[in-house]
Amino acid sequence: MGSKSAGKRYSEAVRWLFTEPIPEEIARKQVEKALPESAEGCDVIYSALPSAVAREIEPKFAQAGFALVSEASAHRMEPDVPLMIPEVNPDHLKLLTRQRESRGWKRGIVTTPNCTVTGLAIVLKPLVDSFSTGKAIVTTMQALSGAGFPGVPSLQIVDNLIPYIQGEEEKVAQEAKKILGTLNGKNVVPHKIPMGISCNRVAVIDGHTETLYLEFEKSVDVADVIASLEKFRAEPQRLKLPTAPEQPIIVSKEKDRPQPRLDRMQGSIPGMSVVVGRVRHGIDDKSIQLTLLSHNTVRGAAGTAILTSELMESKGYLG
Amino acid sequence: MGSKSAGKRYSEAVRWLFTEPIPEEIARKQVEKALPESAEGCDVIYSALPSAVAREIEPKFAQAGFALVSEASAHRMEPDVPLMIPEVNPDHLKLLTRQRESRGWKRGIVTTPNCTVTGLAIVLKPLVDSFSTGKAIVTTMQALSGAGFPGVPSLQIVDNLIPYIQGEEEKVAQEAKKILGTLNGKNVVPHKIPMGISCNRVAVIDGHTETLYLEFEKSVDVADVIASLEKFRAEPQRLKLPTAPEQPIIVSKEKDRPQPRLDRMQGSIPGMSVVVGRVRHGIDDKSIQLTLLSHNTVRGAAGTAILTSELMESKGYLG
Amino acid sequence: MGSKSAGKRYSEAVRWLFTEPIPEEIARKQVEKALPESAEGCDVIYSALPSAVAREIEPKFAQAGFALVSEASAHRMEPDVPLMIPEVNPDHLKLLTRQRESRGWKRGIVTTPNCTVTGLAIVLKPLVDSFSTGKAIVTTMQALSGAGFPGVPSLQIVDNLIPYIQGEEEKVAQEAKKILGTLNGKNVVPHKIPMGISCNRVAVIDGHTETLYLEFEKSVDVADVIASLEKFRAEPQRLKLPTAPEQPIIVSKEKDRPQPRLDRMQGSIPGMSVVVGRVRHGIDDKSIQLTLLSHNTVRGAAGTAILTSELMESKGYLG
Amino acid sequence: MGSKSAGKRYSEAVRWLFTEPIPEEIARKQVEKALPESAEGCDVIYSALPSAVAREIEPKFAQAGFALVSEASAHRMEPDVPLMIPEVNPDHLKLLTRQRESRGWKRGIVTTPNCTVTGLAIVLKPLVDSFSTGKAIVTTMQALSGAGFPGVPSLQIVDNLIPYIQGEEEKVAQEAKKILGTLNGKNVVPHKIPMGISCNRVAVIDGHTETLYLEFEKSVDVADVIASLEKFRAEPQRLKLPTAPEQPIIVSKEKDRPQPRLDRMQGSIPGMSVVVGRVRHGIDDKSIQLTLLSHNTVRGAAGTAILTSELMESKGYLG
Repeated sequence: MGSKSAGKRYSEAVRWLFTEPIPEEIARKQVEKALPESAEGCDVIYSALPSAVAREIEPKFAQAGFALVSEASAHRMEPDVPLMIPEVNPDHLKLLTRQRESRGWKRGIVTTPNCTVTGLAIVLKPLVDSFSTGKAIVTTMQALSGAGFPGVPSLQIVDNLIPYIQGEEEKVAQEAKKILGTLNGKNVVPHKIPMGISCNRVAVIDGHTETLYLEFEKSVDVADVIASLEKFRAEPQRLKLPTAPEQPIIVSKEKDRPQPRLDRMQGSIPGMSVVVGRVRHGIDDKSIQLTLLSHNTVRGAAGTAILTSELMESKGYLG
Repeated sequence: MGSKSAGKRYSEAVRWLFTEPIPEEIARKQVEKALPESAEGCDVIYSALPSAVAREIEPKFAQAGFALVSEASAHRMEPDVPLMIPEVNPDHLKLLTRQRESRGWKRGIVTTPNCTVTGLAIVLKPLVDSFSTGKAIVTTMQALSGAGFPGVPSLQIVDNLIPYIQGEEEKVAQEAKKILGTLNGKNVVPHKIPMGISCNRVAVIDGHTETLYLEFEKSVDVADVIASLEKFRAEPQRLKLPTAPEQPIIVSKEKDRPQPRLDRMQGSIPGMSVVVGRVRHGIDDKSIQLTLLSHNTVRGAAGTAILTSELMESKGYLG
Repeated sequence: MGSKSAGKRYSEAVRWLFTEPIPEEIARKQVEKALPESAEGCDVIYSALPSAVAREIEPKFAQAGFALVSEASAHRMEPDVPLMIPEVNPDHLKLLTRQRESRGWKRGIVTTPNCTVTGLAIVLKPLVDSFSTGKAIVTTMQALSGAGFPGVPSLQIVDNLIPYIQGEEEKVAQEAKKILGTLNGKNVVPHKIPMGISCNRVAVIDGHTETLYLEFEKSVDVADVIASLEKFRAEPQRLKLPTAPEQPIIVSKEKDRPQPRLDRMQGSIPGMSVVVGRVRHGIDDKSIQLTLLSHNTVRGAAGTAILTSELMESKGYLG
Repeated sequence: MGSKSAGKRYSEAVRWLFTEPIPEEIARKQVEKALPESAEGCDVIYSALPSAVAREIEPKFAQAGFALVSEASAHRMEPDVPLMIPEVNPDHLKLLTRQRESRGWKRGIVTTPNCTVTGLAIVLKPLVDSFSTGKAIVTTMQALSGAGFPGVPSLQIVDNLIPYIQGEEEKVAQEAKKILGTLNGKNVVPHKIPMGISCNRVAVIDGHTETLYLEFEKSVDVADVIASLEKFRAEPQRLKLPTAPEQPIIVSKEKDRPQPRLDRMQGSIPGMSVVVGRVRHGIDDKSIQLTLLSHNTVRGAAGTAILTSELMESKGYLG
């Protein structure tokens, strides 16, 4: 919370925009200043600060010995900072060892990616692991909640769409490559997959929909691609972390799905699974096309932050 | 009009859904049965019949000696039927000679393409002519009016999008290749451009937006691509046909355009120009990405039909 | 279910349009024909049939001895059929005695009102009981889900609203007066409150919003009106029926509420409370104006049907 | 334009959000500082300044001898400032004589009303003139463009409506009474019609829809009310002012009109007519209910300002 809100009750300091009302016990809490002293006794700090503020404040908390899981973009691309999707690159947490050594921090900063990357990286993970893949061409149709509040003016989105999101396309390509990258000693070697990204904003409240065209070095069977997606399980599933969905990827059989309003809350942990549909060949049998949907404020933000902290605890990084 | 409407005033027979009210002189007209007799004295018949009805009725009019310009899909892919965008393939009208010979028709049937093809084919035309192009990967975000009336239920589109349109992706690829194809004697040899298409329906009234990723055999300058699009002029412009826009393609310099509500009526003949924006390199300098917008009920339907008839008249095909 | 669906799995027979996926145990169930034989062993039958079908089929079930709770409009205004909102007119269930006698049915038909009436009648109940009220002028802004599926075409609601709903205004006035009416021996004497209703359809998925202007015979304090609404408890609350919300009416203190997306799921039983806001004087201190919101598919349909059956069981009408 | 924009080309200084592109000759114009010197040679100044700025700057222009037609709310309620709808109160321009005397201004300030008042006052005018009317209860469903830019955040309006607009209800009642008031010597005596107003924002781009419940002292025929509305002509029509629509009020016969997207541009001067529909009795034959629609940025803003200046010129107030 900004310093202007310090001292207020939480319900006075926020503009609560969710369908479910603010829980009374949360509403009553007092907002504290973002100072390490205020956080005493916490195991892990979640940060959703604006990037410029995060750049300044988060290191102070790390310096004070806290573990931070940050949804802010400020430190995502620093070489000693893990950029985490627990299902995709659980081993990248090992970067923390290097970070702690070089920065002298007890626990350190871990980041989670841009909300548009998360669904895409989860879907790409089993595919780049199971097949020899070529380039990925992606068009996104992103939800309004991804732009925060007040975000997109209503005059710009009723009977309209916006074919541009500042800085987004660069972030998606760059972050996806780091997340899919290989930990080589103390460095993450980014994945080499060439990516062409077009980002659009559409009149949807929650849920980023993305079309993916993906090439392969050899012919692939659509059935094999589907099987690879459906069978994908990873470290959070094996560890049975509380926020880990049973299936990271759900493949819809219906021809006109996934749809954001109908599918964004799918899965055993609502909003944590990516829903894929329309898996089919692309221009020939050496390419596929599919549509994926991920809940941008659950899987794309708070949910992945919580899951990351659960993985950190399970691996002993919060001690 | 279906036979149920015959005899009614036009204003009673239609559900008029345009912002501008129905012109009084049109409202007063009487709806006639779709019989060749009713059309006596017409130079050209425009048909926007449902495909199954068009398949049956249009040949009757052709048989009776009329020239038909049909927006229906029924006869588009027949080898002796021109599938026309006057800026792209004016010479394909010559197929009419073959059609008249083989079918014994005085004037014959000419078709115009699916509303999603039109903008794409116009944009591809100068690019495939000026550069050696490779594959095209396209994602569409299509307007509700493209689905007709009643079309998409509102419960399916508020806070939602639909990532599928029945039969659309196949039509787009097939029709674009015919339109961009080369007339070789009495046959159109389809263009070989490989196309991967993903069609989506979004909460926009009019205007189909499409992202295009296009590969080239060699490096291209973005500026050269833009110049090629902006300078594109074709037969309808040279002939100064009444419905021909001065510029078939307008390239927007603003970073967040084209947007359907703001740009669909651009151009000297509102709605007849395709608006392109965000022209940039794709995965490397041998590919580009751009966003294009075309008004699906003007350029994508009635406007191209009228322009086609103007071209036919100018070339002597209505005599 | 219509006879065409009989024998199918439920998931194949319905078009499921909710955000939360269809529960697996429901999806697997087999759809039966709407015949009394299929219902053997049921305590109560819930009917949401189209009115014309309900008129024919529901009496067959009643004849066979079942208790029916019907959301259909078919029998709502029959003098021996209770039209129930358990918080408003629990005593109207006594009409069943007359119904059973005259029709020779063991249990009989009970109906629930039109979705637009429910919120309005609940808000009017404490006011007509506590004050001497005059006329009520109501304007509704109703959700799309109230029109069923496919319901309102998207072309009619994007950048638009529809100021008319067939038959709705008559139903609202007529049904509200019956529900607020007094049981006098074997008859319900309708409430005399004069009502002027204007119904509109707006681009909202769920939740009917209504502005109410209400006159009183004497001056009223706004604070007294608010207290009367907030303190309202009724038979279902006293009986602690499972689907009874703790507060039938929640009064929002925020100046810009209730809003459908934010408030429709308020309350201890989400969707079962009516949310009221903006309580203020009208043209003078002998009138008030307020805005109310009720979830049309929960409180306005299934929820009230279930609560009615709970009340019936509690009162011994299902035995 | 704010001083930050001075010196820029118009196209650089504004965010142009209309469907029709900015005309080239306008785009090229240079933005001047809002100083009387910049306006030399103008006959009339149109002001659409924010209220606080208008309060300070407009008198400077008046002081410098200009005639101002202001859409700002700053001076609307001052007793010597006309608040004009040319069809409703053309004689109120005479207030300018008093204003010029008391303030020593050559021409002076004339204002136009809040966009929500305009349609309502035009519809009330023939009714209060032809019948003895009682109270008016109004619920508005207002367009997004009425809130300016950026205005309402999209997250607040998709699948939602907002039942409150800051200060609007007070303005509507107060301004309507002044406009419908009687010029008595040097003062406007406000009309006494009691008004209860509820303002709502809905997901519509342009066009304010309003339901009106209006009482009469005696029984009225619906047909007489319709005739009174349809036949209404006023000073601008008699003077054939260029921006005056042939019919200030158009009565739609269709049962589900007016609808904002379909009807906001009706009339001989598109957007300048108010469209009325659903005229019917209210709670009895001494009241009527109807729905009215007026284009908030045409009739509700720029159009009425231009029409006012045309009336001023015609009446010699610009000399």
